[in-house]
Amino acid sequence: MLKQYFPILVWGKNYGRASLTNDLIAAIVVTLMLIPQSLAYAMLAGLPPQVGLYASMLPLIAYTIFGTSRTLAVGPVASGSLMTAVAVGNIAAQGSFDYYLAAISLAFISGLILVVMGFFRMGFLANFLSHPVISGFVIASGILIAAGQLKHILGVRGSGQNLIEISLGLIPQLGKISQPTLLVGVAVICYLVLMRMHLKSLLLRLGVNPRVAGIMLKSSPVLAVVITTLVSWRYSLDAIGVRIVGSIASGLPPFTMPSFDPDLWRSLAGSALLISVIGFVESVSVAQTLAAKRRQRIIPDQEMIALGTANIASALSGGFPVNGGFARSVVNFEAGAETPAAGAFTAIGITAAIIFLTPILFFLPQATLAATIIVAVLSLIDPGVIKRTWIYSKSDFAAMLATIMLTLLEGIVTGILSGVALSLLIHLYRTSRPHFAIVGQVPGTEHFRNILRHKVVTSLTVLNLRVDESLYFPNARFLEDTVQNLVAQNPAIRHVVLMCAAVNSIDASGLESLEAINARLRDSDVKLHCSEIKGPVMDQLQRSHFLEELTGKVFLSQYEAFAALDPQAAKMAMEQRHSHQIAGN
Amino acid sequence: MLKQYFPILVWGKNYGRASLTNDLIAAIVVTLMLIPQSLAYAMLAGLPPQVGLYASMLPLIAYTIFGTSRTLAVGPVASGSLMTAVAVGNIAAQGSFDYYLAAISLAFISGLILVVMGFFRMGFLANFLSHPVISGFVIASGILIAAGQLKHILGVRGSGQNLIEISLGLIPQLGKISQPTLLVGVAVICYLVLMRMHLKSLLLRLGVNPRVAGIMLKSSPVLAVVITTLVSWRYSLDAIGVRIVGSIASGLPPFTMPSFDPDLWRSLAGSALLISVIGFVESVSVAQTLAAKRRQRIIPDQEMIALGTANIASALSGGFPVNGGFARSVVNFEAGAETPAAGAFTAIGITAAIIFLTPILFFLPQATLAATIIVAVLSLIDPGVIKRTWIYSKSDFAAMLATIMLTLLEGIVTGILSGVALSLLIHLYRTSRPHFAIVGQVPGTEHFRNILRHKVVTSLTVLNLRVDESLYFPNARFLEDTVQNLVAQNPAIRHVVLMCAAVNSIDASGLESLEAINARLRDSDVKLHCSEIKGPVMDQLQRSHFLEELTGKVFLSQYEAFAALDPQAAKMAMEQRHSHQIAGN
Repeated sequence: MLKQYFPILVWGKNYGRASLTNDLIAAIVVTLMLIPQSLAYAMLAGLPPQVGLYASMLPLIAYTIFGTSRTLAVGPVASGSLMTAVAVGNIAAQGSFDYYLAAISLAFISGLILVVMGFFRMGFLANFLSHPVISGFVIASGILIAAGQLKHILGVRGSGQNLIEISLGLIPQLGKISQPTLLVGVAVICYLVLMRMHLKSLLLRLGVNPRVAGIMLKSSPVLAVVITTLVSWRYSLDAIGVRIVGSIASGLPPFTMPSFDPDLWRSLAGSALLISVIGFVESVSVAQTLAAKRRQRIIPDQEMIALGTANIASALSGGFPVNGGFARSVVNFEAGAETPAAGAFTAIGITAAIIFLTPILFFLPQATLAATIIVAVLSLIDPGVIKRTWIYSKSDFAAMLATIMLTLLEGIVTGILSGVALSLLIHLYRTSRPHFAIVGQVPGTEHFRNILRHKVVTSLTVLNLRVDESLYFPNARFLEDTVQNLVAQNPAIRHVVLMCAAVNSIDASGLESLEAINARLRDSDVKLHCSEIKGPVMDQLQRSHFLEELTGKVFLSQYEAFAALDPQAAKMAMEQRHSHQIAGN
Repeated sequence: MLKQYFPILVWGKNYGRASLTNDLIAAIVVTLMLIPQSLAYAMLAGLPPQVGLYASMLPLIAYTIFGTSRTLAVGPVASGSLMTAVAVGNIAAQGSFDYYLAAISLAFISGLILVVMGFFRMGFLANFLSHPVISGFVIASGILIAAGQLKHILGVRGSGQNLIEISLGLIPQLGKISQPTLLVGVAVICYLVLMRMHLKSLLLRLGVNPRVAGIMLKSSPVLAVVITTLVSWRYSLDAIGVRIVGSIASGLPPFTMPSFDPDLWRSLAGSALLISVIGFVESVSVAQTLAAKRRQRIIPDQEMIALGTANIASALSGGFPVNGGFARSVVNFEAGAETPAAGAFTAIGITAAIIFLTPILFFLPQATLAATIIVAVLSLIDPGVIKRTWIYSKSDFAAMLATIMLTLLEGIVTGILSGVALSLLIHLYRTSRPHFAIVGQVPGTEHFRNILRHKVVTSLTVLNLRVDESLYFPNARFLEDTVQNLVAQNPAIRHVVLMCAAVNSIDASGLESLEAINARLRDSDVKLHCSEIKGPVMDQLQRSHFLEELTGKVFLSQYEAFAALDPQAAKMAMEQRHSHQIAGN
């Protein structure tokens, strides 16, 4: 019981020297990567840079205690930071104390929601964010984030929460572009893009181990930070209009308390729920993927609790919402992290950074951070997914497109909720007009297939009907109509066999329809049979009078039904194998 | 094409003398039943009595032309009248011209909605009213209607749209009860209840044909109308406080036009949609049931058009919303109606009544009409359905209970919409945690069943997994977790076969999950196979890369998969039949 909620008790018991070494190495690599990321994402969220570092300390310790993934690396992430900026920006002015307090409270509420959901095993709710909706969200929020960072690259002021507002905000500023800032920003972007395109293959050609090459690539922003900071300090770029990070409060994170103002909670609740659920989905996907590579297991409901405590820890130590980051976790994994202890060591690394490095980062240009954000989010955008979805399923494509367009034009919350609602409506529409197939026996087997797609044996007097959906209220009447029409068209039919292999449940409306079908067929002297009814469905039917009223029988398999109702046809079908086999031999 | 929209062209061609006689007899019986019903339902809708007769003339002619049911009898019905009173009562004061105009407009808008929905084949939308929601609605609206009519039985004033308002409105009036009115009302209720309980068995014992006995029972309100009218006239009951129907405008219905005020349309649109859909569901259920008894067919989408034109006809001739009535259609059927012409003849009968009978109905006590309404709606309430639903399915019961309680306390619209929403949420929750079964071969057959419920043959190296749900976003991750856990628990497994007989569709999220499962199993040296993939699902998978990436094969049947992957186990299972058969012989 205790071990269920404290996975550290499981892996901590056998923690040894070898694991310690590996975890320490991974922690150093992740720390190097996390420092610029933390500063950048704090800027994206509209918060002072040190807040990003605060969010990379205590939350990592919390995840080490409660997390079930061995390699998930927690901290501020791009989408969460953007959502924080939007949610908090509606409540207070950026830079004010109220803005900071609201961000802390948002982390606290998100954390609370996650812990409660995890405790009550409500992780399944995250599944309602379908794959097309998440892909659409990643694409649209990537575009929004990149567009929002343009002002830092251009060295102008700007604001806005959707693409139109951001564009309209930038246009009047185009005359005021700071050319030194633009130079720094474009140089960093070019450097990062070149690294992504060529560094890995270059290193491989130089004989570097591929794993190490991957880690070096992910750490390349550190070099950009170091060089642009040095240039900015040496040539006093701030004097010619390049905005710099400035003084970062150094020292350990403060103890902070969220606000408990009910009005604030009400206005943050919706955003907090969305940040929680989206963050959870992102984290769990990464964690699952990495766990599978080592045949490990993660427990989604416990992951909710772990991410929840990480967010509460963030709120109590001056941070903002956190969750598992994709690139960061992959680096952690590839750098050899074996246990969540690597996260705790990373937290120590960040603590060292905040104490010793903050004076040095004073001259870091904001354009450098903006450039790292832009390259990071745009690299997450995979245009191929749009094409693949279009080819695979038009309805999934519709949900994705709605999510992208509405996120860009109306904001993240509207975009995601519309995508989810559309996905559900499409599903309900589809199940309300289910697929039906008249089936026949595949020669030489006991298997039954659609007469339109396979060469099968059928019978004049027995109608074998496969229903390809659970019987529930949106499609109940459809089944009635289908059976009635088929029987009206084929006067020779004496038996209808409903093959229920695809019927996973029958609700009260479905039962009513079955009873109506049974009664109507009885009036026309046709018997109704069922085959392949599954256990859970059978359990339910036994609590009604349907099985007593049924004019025909319930058969274990469709073959058994066919063999009983038209033995000649079934025998003929079976013999076709024999002749076929003899011919084949 | 023309015949599709004008079914009268089909049955009218062979219309002969025999059909004419039968239709005429049925029309006379239905007319006798319809006169008191029309007056009563107009009163229930808060409209002058003649409006009920208007609604029983032109709409019937329209249905004769467009309807596909041979025996559905159209006209004002209890639930539609109550919904009219609620919808129009929110807009204008009862008795005002605006109230009447709004009622006419409501019929027009409902008719328009039905015609458009029928034309665009949107009849499937009606299926979203599940059986428990409709049962709950019938129960709750029956109680609401009966409670609303109590004021006429007590001879007091009252108002209110939900049970609490109606009760609170009646309590202060209890001191003002009119005893002669109460006497008339209670006498009629007792008479009608006694008739329902004993008339039919009495007539049967006297040797009357059961069909005729049924028709006489349904016509028994006519006698109550005649007697109470005579008593009321002879003893001048109106002078001692018994409210009477009073003067009914006689003569043909006027030509009326609905209002085209956009504000009025906006405020009526929601109610009109609900009246249309509920009326359509009621009508189609009755029509289907009666059509099946004679192996006839009705076409739901064309029924929408027919009911729509009936409502438009009602609006143009001074009437209010109409649809197919249950009791009335059964009487029409049992009285021998053969074609929709019976409806046209009924319309002629009502026309005769409005010309010759209205002066006679002057003294008809309103309490008589209220008593017929109360007995009619309460007889529709079947308490058994509540118990049966409770036993069959707790989730359907929850939807029914929500509909009943919210209809009684918050009104019809809130009640029905909440019931529908709850039904959908329950369905989504259920499909998000689908049933999975590990299956094995049923000895002596090619059939595979759940190892927990059947004696089956399994294999150590092959995991046969049956997924009992379509793979779509709410359950995609659930499948990933399930497969991962099962494989982690059984290290001997080399092959996983997903038996897809119950997988009716795979959306983009489901595909993503399948790809993730395939990749993770490959990392653990386990092959993934699929069996019994249906045609439409296979078509879809072929538009993705999944089938190329699949480490294993796609088998036609689960048996074929098992026989290929563990031939020994499959052979052993087949031989068990032989030994069994020998033992059986």
